[in-house]
Amino acid sequence: MGNKTLNDLFLTTLKDVYYAEKAIVRALSKMAKAAESEDLKEAFLKHREESEGHVQRLEQVFEMLGKKASGKTCEAIKGIIEEGQEIMEDFGDSDALDAGLIAAGQAVEHYEISRYGTLRTWARHLDMRDAVKLLDQTLAEEKKTDQLLSELAEARANPKADRAA
Amino acid sequence: MGNKTLNDLFLTTLKDVYYAEKAIVRALSKMAKAAESEDLKEAFLKHREESEGHVQRLEQVFEMLGKKASGKTCEAIKGIIEEGQEIMEDFGDSDALDAGLIAAGQAVEHYEISRYGTLRTWARHLDMRDAVKLLDQTLAEEKKTDQLLSELAEARANPKADRAA
Repeated sequence: MGNKTLNDLFLTTLKDVYYAEKAIVRALSKMAKAAESEDLKEAFLKHREESEGHVQRLEQVFEMLGKKASGKTCEAIKGIIEEGQEIMEDFGDSDALDAGLIAAGQAVEHYEISRYGTLRTWARHLDMRDAVKLLDQTLAEEKKTDQLLSELAEARANPKADRAA
Repeated sequence: MGNKTLNDLFLTTLKDVYYAEKAIVRALSKMAKAAESEDLKEAFLKHREESEGHVQRLEQVFEMLGKKASGKTCEAIKGIIEEGQEIMEDFGDSDALDAGLIAAGQAVEHYEISRYGTLRTWARHLDMRDAVKLLDQTLAEEKKTDQLLSELAEARANPKADRAA
């Protein structure tokens, strides 16, 4: 145990994120289906497509390590997605549904932002330059999605005002 | 069900974050105890103290709503903290422990950043100006902690280089 290294930690976390991304792809499909507004549906579907690309980038990083891509159950993303599911159940036919879905989406994005930020820092320290590039690309897309959801939250938080516009 | 509003969503999410903050206070104590380096220990202890203040601010927001402060099990933070616990178990006596603890801390911070960002947006739309102020103060502290952890990650990711310095 005592001789575990940053390489081991990197691989463990890579597996965690690989599991998370695959779960996110599935969750985004459900969230897109549930969303009331067309722009939110589109945002979720676009990010689902991006997330499929993120899975592929992670597979490339596994390859760089000479390892077979494999996931490791990520309790964090399970909990985050479960909370989104609760929102869909509890606010399913209310005016506040989209606001709740956006919040769930942003919780997902922030988990990913933290994980990709961590992986990128470690890849830099491990001198894995090609991995840094790939992780950076994904990180930028996660941040952009979070920003887009913030903008939709501003517009959607008050559905009455929105409708009157 | 159909007549649930943004007010209901705000209250539900407030309870979620209230539960989360209390769990975070407990987790930060354990993480501080486990951390190898003094600066990381200090960072966790300082943020534990701040988090106690966050709990109090949330109680003020409950009061503004005329509600008794109460938590609602937050599966997301349970999962995030569980992953931190796994790191402590699996990397407990390795050189990579602090890097793993920092990553766990950043996952916690990002969850909070997403939740406080959401609550602040909704409070603004619900015209709860005093709540917006309190939520903004906490949000700023969460972001600052995340930033500090990023700096520690840069310094700690490569313990050998660090020791040589």
